[in-house]
Amino acid sequence: MKHGYPVIASDVFPESCKELRELGAQILDSPADVADKADRIVTMLPSSPNVIDVYTGPNGILKRVKKGSLLIDSSTIDPAVSKEMAVAAEKRGAVFMDAPVSGGVGAATSGKLTFMVGGPEEEFNAAKELLSCMGANVVYCGQVGTGQAAKICNNMLLAIGMIGTAETMNLGIRLGLDPKLLAKILNMSSGRCWSSDTYNPVPGVMEGVPSANNYQGGFGTTLMAKDLGLAQNTATNTKTPVPLGSLAHQIYRMMCARGYASKDFSSVFQFLREEEGQ
Amino acid sequence: MKHGYPVIASDVFPESCKELRELGAQILDSPADVADKADRIVTMLPSSPNVIDVYTGPNGILKRVKKGSLLIDSSTIDPAVSKEMAVAAEKRGAVFMDAPVSGGVGAATSGKLTFMVGGPEEEFNAAKELLSCMGANVVYCGQVGTGQAAKICNNMLLAIGMIGTAETMNLGIRLGLDPKLLAKILNMSSGRCWSSDTYNPVPGVMEGVPSANNYQGGFGTTLMAKDLGLAQNTATNTKTPVPLGSLAHQIYRMMCARGYASKDFSSVFQFLREEEGQ
Amino acid sequence: MKHGYPVIASDVFPESCKELRELGAQILDSPADVADKADRIVTMLPSSPNVIDVYTGPNGILKRVKKGSLLIDSSTIDPAVSKEMAVAAEKRGAVFMDAPVSGGVGAATSGKLTFMVGGPEEEFNAAKELLSCMGANVVYCGQVGTGQAAKICNNMLLAIGMIGTAETMNLGIRLGLDPKLLAKILNMSSGRCWSSDTYNPVPGVMEGVPSANNYQGGFGTTLMAKDLGLAQNTATNTKTPVPLGSLAHQIYRMMCARGYASKDFSSVFQFLREEEGQ
Amino acid sequence: MKHGYPVIASDVFPESCKELRELGAQILDSPADVADKADRIVTMLPSSPNVIDVYTGPNGILKRVKKGSLLIDSSTIDPAVSKEMAVAAEKRGAVFMDAPVSGGVGAATSGKLTFMVGGPEEEFNAAKELLSCMGANVVYCGQVGTGQAAKICNNMLLAIGMIGTAETMNLGIRLGLDPKLLAKILNMSSGRCWSSDTYNPVPGVMEGVPSANNYQGGFGTTLMAKDLGLAQNTATNTKTPVPLGSLAHQIYRMMCARGYASKDFSSVFQFLREEEGQ
Repeated sequence: MKHGYPVIASDVFPESCKELRELGAQILDSPADVADKADRIVTMLPSSPNVIDVYTGPNGILKRVKKGSLLIDSSTIDPAVSKEMAVAAEKRGAVFMDAPVSGGVGAATSGKLTFMVGGPEEEFNAAKELLSCMGANVVYCGQVGTGQAAKICNNMLLAIGMIGTAETMNLGIRLGLDPKLLAKILNMSSGRCWSSDTYNPVPGVMEGVPSANNYQGGFGTTLMAKDLGLAQNTATNTKTPVPLGSLAHQIYRMMCARGYASKDFSSVFQFLREEEGQ
Repeated sequence: MKHGYPVIASDVFPESCKELRELGAQILDSPADVADKADRIVTMLPSSPNVIDVYTGPNGILKRVKKGSLLIDSSTIDPAVSKEMAVAAEKRGAVFMDAPVSGGVGAATSGKLTFMVGGPEEEFNAAKELLSCMGANVVYCGQVGTGQAAKICNNMLLAIGMIGTAETMNLGIRLGLDPKLLAKILNMSSGRCWSSDTYNPVPGVMEGVPSANNYQGGFGTTLMAKDLGLAQNTATNTKTPVPLGSLAHQIYRMMCARGYASKDFSSVFQFLREEEGQ
Repeated sequence: MKHGYPVIASDVFPESCKELRELGAQILDSPADVADKADRIVTMLPSSPNVIDVYTGPNGILKRVKKGSLLIDSSTIDPAVSKEMAVAAEKRGAVFMDAPVSGGVGAATSGKLTFMVGGPEEEFNAAKELLSCMGANVVYCGQVGTGQAAKICNNMLLAIGMIGTAETMNLGIRLGLDPKLLAKILNMSSGRCWSSDTYNPVPGVMEGVPSANNYQGGFGTTLMAKDLGLAQNTATNTKTPVPLGSLAHQIYRMMCARGYASKDFSSVFQFLREEEGQ
Repeated sequence: MKHGYPVIASDVFPESCKELRELGAQILDSPADVADKADRIVTMLPSSPNVIDVYTGPNGILKRVKKGSLLIDSSTIDPAVSKEMAVAAEKRGAVFMDAPVSGGVGAATSGKLTFMVGGPEEEFNAAKELLSCMGANVVYCGQVGTGQAAKICNNMLLAIGMIGTAETMNLGIRLGLDPKLLAKILNMSSGRCWSSDTYNPVPGVMEGVPSANNYQGGFGTTLMAKDLGLAQNTATNTKTPVPLGSLAHQIYRMMCARGYASKDFSSVFQFLREEEGQ
């Protein structure tokens, strides 16, 4: 809306659209209703079954989609489901692209999200025009499903880097190193990674990150566990060995079972650090 | 020598000193002989038993060390051994500092190594003066042993990042992503790490790295396995959980057993990537 | 046939039925043809897509199944697919049960397989009558899908025990223990497991097992990797942490990539044991 | 004493000898004092430094040991320390054997412990005569240190089997299987292990085990973590890959950090089983 586009929206929880309505958006009852009025549609949903329902369900977009519509799904889901949706959309004369997003709530508010886009290359510019309103980076990844693949790959490596940073900082502290100094050394050396230099999990090392705020906000452990489950599924299906990715998945799964589900995923430092007897 | 210092050296394999002698260095028979003539000594040795021998053995430095000498050990060894050497040196009136180094053969030749230094803070400037001749970065880490701790921590996180990058690149390729594009996406996102942006393990993604040269040169898998063994030992001794570091150790150990011992440690990509039936 | 039943069979590779035909079985062209003539049908197929095709495909059993037929699937597949097949069969008035089997080629020939059966309890006796011709043990596990669950659980624990035994025997040998003696000690102590006392992976410890025959025969690494993939999928879907099961999956996946695909799964001992430099 | 031997004892905590004194034992001040009076000595201590102190410390056994004495250490420690003690004892004309023990408090009280003995074969009968008073099984393992090796190997495989059983039972329960039935199926199949058939970690499956008593008693998580640390150290030193053993170590280390230190090691079932949101 800030970029001058009229917005027509729908959500299974209508109350979540209240603020949007007050800003001037039109709120409709169902995805099918939106498809009836708009020919460029962006969806963002929690998991594969929701996407299947919103596109192919009884009140789904494809029930009333207009020929030539551009459908962009920014959910993080199994790439195989993205491919199925693309096939179903094509049968109705529409184009489906997957465009999952990375960056947290802060990036969303300030329009600095990164979109990773999969789908027909000739439609990429149209998608980019829309997505650029919300994200600083819009990257073309290849055929439909590759946006998901890129997102899943990034988050798997992110989880590995975060747990690795947490282990490493914890070990260094136990060996007598000052945490700020250790972070500085890692960041000028080959141990450097996003989790060490931008989102350090140790309280007191950086400001403005969840570790400075008791692991509130940020990217929840449950969401990370979900993305790692997607990575594991795609790895199993393609017979790809991912030993660290797989163990990272298990660690975040254990954290969910031990009370860390809603904390930021950098709380793995806290999960690992307590000493015996405390 | 480029910085104007006279050099007196010794090595258990005298032939390795040949080039140095031709450049004007004085080559002596034993560490004790060197200690007799020099009061600032730098050692670099493969493992803890060698360090113990070179300092406290029958022809060791401490047999003839001068009071007030500064002894700097740039080996990567167990921090507990560094502490033992410091105690033994102190009894002889000398100062021992640990100063392990990171950066490969290229960095050594061009004087761009990083030294991580542990020992009495009041001696750090003297150490730095010497080490600056060889390294671009000389970082004070704290009491004796913390140089080792920093080095071990860095390399553990490096190994985790490298294996994670290899798994992730392999998975992305199997999911249809172009490797160069995937590296670019990771490097602008939260998956970014030194192994993805500076030392990418996938042939064809970067130039001038071991993956572009059939994994020749660089930092050998055996050496990485050794450093991860040190990390594991210190973690076990301090009761610190290091699940990914521990699995990384096991993977490099398996690679050593499967013929990768002398390849660069980024060859883990090759180790993981082959498909069944090939 | 040994038990006096007439046999009507079909296979996508007709040549594999040749021996059966010579023994007097009737061989038909498709699963649908079999369903037309028989009302008790046992299927055994490599993976979920094959099962879906044989039951619900254009020439599938359900196209011509008779009301009241008992359909028993002895494939090892995802329990969720078993449940789908049961729903589809019920719509046609037939009963579907899952009855995966454990025990290798030897057990199959001598009629000593174990069947784990899921489905309506009132049909179990009918299923047991048939399956007892082929297996020494026929166990009722609960509702449809629980046969698969039991099989997957057993094989996950089997894989963990086998890799654990291989690691342990290798470590003990390196520490100077005689392998036969170590096996004896484990088997009288709390380390005892099926892989140590019945199927020891170390050549020379037992006779009549694959390790005594260069890991020929037995249960192939590829098949174990497949079953561990199923275990991983069900664990991910039910949000169950399975850290060792997950790592076992990754190890068998790596073995497949390193040339062990067709060897018995106890060859993990060989995979782990080689020393550096050999 | 039940077997008619006079007992002379010493402990760093004299109060722990009170019961023994009342039964008629002679209690002395130090290990050296005991060595002065007895020529067959059995020690059992928590860790390597204690053993070094009790044998070679200022009031240690070797200060006053009689020539020809038989010294049996039933501690679980690093085999390398056992070898050092044997060398030190030999210099004093005594024989040192390592004889760690397995079996819990119950087995100790009822004399059903298993001793694994390393040392000179010609001394084994003398050791066996003594140890048979306390243990049902006394097994000769080979040269000094192999008793430790056998103990460490057994406990590593035990830990792997226990965690594997816990994961498997948890997964099966989530997939709809009755825990008692699943245990029965595993125990008649290839998933069978000591942890599934003798010490099942799921409450309600067996009686008389720690899982039936809120994980009280039995073998504590801290002790298991210690033994796994020894296994890890010996594996690292011998360059032996132990991927599952290593992960088992990390899991027990994490459990110690999360409040499970003093529970029986079968409580890993409880550690893994909780669901998100509970």
